[in-house]
Amino acid sequence: MGSSTAPVLNTAATPGRLADVYSEVQKSRLNYPLPLPDVLKRPFQIVDGPPSSAAGNPDEIAKLFPKLFGQPSVSLIPAESFRLDQKLKIGVVLSGGQAPGGHNVISGIFDYLQDRAKGSILYGFRGGPAGVMKCKYVELSSEFIYPYRNQGGFDMICSGRDKIETPEQFKQAEETAVKLDLDGLVIIGGDDSNTNACLLAENFRAKNMKTRVIGCPKTIDGDLKSKEVPTSFGFDTACKIYSEMIGNVMTDARSTGKYYHFVRLMGRAASHITLECALQTHPNITIIGEEVAAKKQTLKNVTDYITDIICKRADLGYNYGVILIPEGLIDFIPEVQQLIAELNEILAHDVVDEGGMWKKKLRHQSQLLFEFLPQAIQEQLMLERDPHGNVQVAKIETEKMLISMVETELERRKQIGQYKGQFKGQSHFFGYEGRCGLPTNFDSTYCYALGYAAGALLHFGKTGLISSVGNLGAPVEQWTVGGTALTLLMDVERRHGKFKPVIKKAMVELEGAPFRKFASMRDEWAIKNRYISPGPIQFHGPACNDINHTLLLELGAQA
Amino acid sequence: MGSSTAPVLNTAATPGRLADVYSEVQKSRLNYPLPLPDVLKRPFQIVDGPPSSAAGNPDEIAKLFPKLFGQPSVSLIPAESFRLDQKLKIGVVLSGGQAPGGHNVISGIFDYLQDRAKGSILYGFRGGPAGVMKCKYVELSSEFIYPYRNQGGFDMICSGRDKIETPEQFKQAEETAVKLDLDGLVIIGGDDSNTNACLLAENFRAKNMKTRVIGCPKTIDGDLKSKEVPTSFGFDTACKIYSEMIGNVMTDARSTGKYYHFVRLMGRAASHITLECALQTHPNITIIGEEVAAKKQTLKNVTDYITDIICKRADLGYNYGVILIPEGLIDFIPEVQQLIAELNEILAHDVVDEGGMWKKKLRHQSQLLFEFLPQAIQEQLMLERDPHGNVQVAKIETEKMLISMVETELERRKQIGQYKGQFKGQSHFFGYEGRCGLPTNFDSTYCYALGYAAGALLHFGKTGLISSVGNLGAPVEQWTVGGTALTLLMDVERRHGKFKPVIKKAMVELEGAPFRKFASMRDEWAIKNRYISPGPIQFHGPACNDINHTLLLELGAQA
Repeated sequence: MGSSTAPVLNTAATPGRLADVYSEVQKSRLNYPLPLPDVLKRPFQIVDGPPSSAAGNPDEIAKLFPKLFGQPSVSLIPAESFRLDQKLKIGVVLSGGQAPGGHNVISGIFDYLQDRAKGSILYGFRGGPAGVMKCKYVELSSEFIYPYRNQGGFDMICSGRDKIETPEQFKQAEETAVKLDLDGLVIIGGDDSNTNACLLAENFRAKNMKTRVIGCPKTIDGDLKSKEVPTSFGFDTACKIYSEMIGNVMTDARSTGKYYHFVRLMGRAASHITLECALQTHPNITIIGEEVAAKKQTLKNVTDYITDIICKRADLGYNYGVILIPEGLIDFIPEVQQLIAELNEILAHDVVDEGGMWKKKLRHQSQLLFEFLPQAIQEQLMLERDPHGNVQVAKIETEKMLISMVETELERRKQIGQYKGQFKGQSHFFGYEGRCGLPTNFDSTYCYALGYAAGALLHFGKTGLISSVGNLGAPVEQWTVGGTALTLLMDVERRHGKFKPVIKKAMVELEGAPFRKFASMRDEWAIKNRYISPGPIQFHGPACNDINHTLLLELGAQA
Repeated sequence: MGSSTAPVLNTAATPGRLADVYSEVQKSRLNYPLPLPDVLKRPFQIVDGPPSSAAGNPDEIAKLFPKLFGQPSVSLIPAESFRLDQKLKIGVVLSGGQAPGGHNVISGIFDYLQDRAKGSILYGFRGGPAGVMKCKYVELSSEFIYPYRNQGGFDMICSGRDKIETPEQFKQAEETAVKLDLDGLVIIGGDDSNTNACLLAENFRAKNMKTRVIGCPKTIDGDLKSKEVPTSFGFDTACKIYSEMIGNVMTDARSTGKYYHFVRLMGRAASHITLECALQTHPNITIIGEEVAAKKQTLKNVTDYITDIICKRADLGYNYGVILIPEGLIDFIPEVQQLIAELNEILAHDVVDEGGMWKKKLRHQSQLLFEFLPQAIQEQLMLERDPHGNVQVAKIETEKMLISMVETELERRKQIGQYKGQFKGQSHFFGYEGRCGLPTNFDSTYCYALGYAAGALLHFGKTGLISSVGNLGAPVEQWTVGGTALTLLMDVERRHGKFKPVIKKAMVELEGAPFRKFASMRDEWAIKNRYISPGPIQFHGPACNDINHTLLLELGAQA
């Protein structure tokens, strides 16, 4: 099923992209046939599971979601016949950063409505949640959607980082829902956006509105997942793009034999991307933020760990290598957090004298750490400030900082005869290149199923669920489809004296299968060169449907 | 033909790479069947063309190459039968920076010897020309070569930047040639390496040695080409890798709507890579070094050109875009060269006082330029010096410099009401990721043919030629094969009062078809968003055999 037969390209009717200037690969992706899980191809019904609880503090979650708490997650199962002749008016919105596959979620919703609820209307809210609040939308048609099928980016309707969370914002969303007579709204986003999706679902239900809300798990960071939601879309593609580049840099390192490439990878909160890229490429050194935090490591510890391996490799005649670093590394190091807090305080209230007397206001340990930092980083900490006067940690180029600190330490060891090699560091940041690539076959298919399922859940009147497609290790035909109660994923955090619901970010688990596999191999990778070059993502031929290691290992561990 | 049938993977016998840890894509590439031009599949003979001249100053070239000057270029044509039963001892060496496809040139030579001169020996000199001089080599076998077939990098025998050019160095090369009883040597390299290949051929001939020398055109920069040598290998793959990433960044720019991405691309001497990537992706702004030089533009001109387009786009509501910059931009700007020369002089001989009095020693124009530069760049110019005390131009991050200068100019225009937009610059450098990628089908096949042809030229006793494969717009079967007299590509430069032979780098020609196509479209690309996302290199499916725009346009212009 799936109405993906190509209409005649009507460029006049597509105010967005013009598929007639597409590259050959883009064109070939337009008509890539998207398989659906069997259950979505035939008549199905929806069955409820047992009542659900919460990921933590169920009593508080129950208070925050009096209407929705406890509702069951649901599964789609085959049925004798399919009789729902209700036409729907549905809205869809993209929330937060781009992830490859977002356009396919929208295609999936659209095709569901075409296939199962002919005559329905799908509105795309423009520019993220702000589009919902301001009622800025476009009515999506087959012609409008066609050029975006299996294409990267979020530009079909664009995204935004606004949130719908205050009473006034809820009111605006209500007005839009009433004005467009919405039966449902699909919110495609990460942990925060899905938390807000659930609050909105609760609010609509509390006001006895007919508008239902369904979430979809999106983030390249891979930190929105649970037993029920095996992965967020975009992670697969982004990691494969970064791994292609890492593999190329590895081959370069081995060929020239004279550079250490320090590669910082996108992913501020969790280190899933870094871990996955390590599993795909086998770098000499990989720093996982969650491990650094668990072991309460200092910046000096991390520097020494890297330097030790560089020295060992030099003894073996290797003066090159590849090192992966998660973007959020600094956030995992408690002493750095402490230093930054103190700096914020001092910079806000004290005079920073050229003589450096101000440094005495730092606690002893922070002072040592500050002196340990390369001068460029010291300056960055002092000069780059956000509008609130705070140090901008996100601006620190961690890879360059580490190169500089490793250089200093190697120089010291050289002086005392402990190191005789040559060291040249090359820094890289792989980020934007991965967020908007053409989605892999997996992300294309997974997103299409997520969207199609979201349509089905709304059609059956469900709300407060996140679209869930499982059994992903099996062929697509056998994938399971359902919806997970968003409240089941929630815990609370205390902020400003109040409980706030949160879907906790799924961090790299040190006891999880992906990290354990990595940990079992990293000593070998450090010394021997076991580089793998995954090469560019392929849409045809062998391995084009392979899924990423993280997901595969987690599925295997679950089985 | 071509002995590329897979031997059993004997990992113990492969001291280099271990194909058993390859990714699926790497594995699938190992057995990619390499088609040969028809003329190489059947009996052939070699026919001489007319006597050759030189690219410039033929009289001087004749003096520098008394033995070789004037020798004809040659072509391979079909023959009734093929009877050469001489076994050969051949050496091969990789010279200079990596380019995707180098391993296939070696495979091509090896397979030629297997197919046509059974019992021959192929030595791979390790670590570039130094390996020739130090007689550091490995005897290449089918098992040794197999894991490198169609793989990126140069690590089969590695490369180096040493040169064989002094009498002592020639002597060392002679000793190696004698010791290994070499019938021939294939030098895979760029303009410099091929110039030296010709000098070595002349030297061997003058000494009545039997060792012949054949060159192969290698460089991702694309600046070694002529009528006879349509392209250098590696350019196709590198540009496609960069274009994939640029396309992704474009989609990101369009989706978020708030960043200007400044992308610096590898390629110090010529801007071919930048031009090719522009033709593949249609960025809003592209700076071509050769045009900047031809129009004698200043840094201020370049900044204003960029800023003007950003302002026009802001008026249209676009506060985002993508800008391509060649790595060597600064080298094309005369005033910057002048400033750097003066700085080198001052820094070597004068005291640089904190008050800045030293700046008065700069000529007025250089002083203005220095003040125009962002502070970070000023500091970089003052602090980063090479071992000779010279400013390190190569270390300047041109993309960051331009972001900073554009910011300043936009701020000025904002003050006087000429600009109302928002500007956020994001910098990128795409370099190492492209040099060692898996070669495209084109580079794989082209390199294999170049290597196979080099074997044939040596078999027929030719020397001082560069392996030449032409008619590249046609199917592989119809490609032409021959050797071009290296002296034909040469001109002289006067250095230290002496004439030195050089193969002039092929720069972007402003009257050439690729630049003219770009120039005819760039105004539209600037204002309208005509982004193309080429996507990842495909080895199967539609367009997997397409060649790059530059080559296609140049072939078309020639026809």
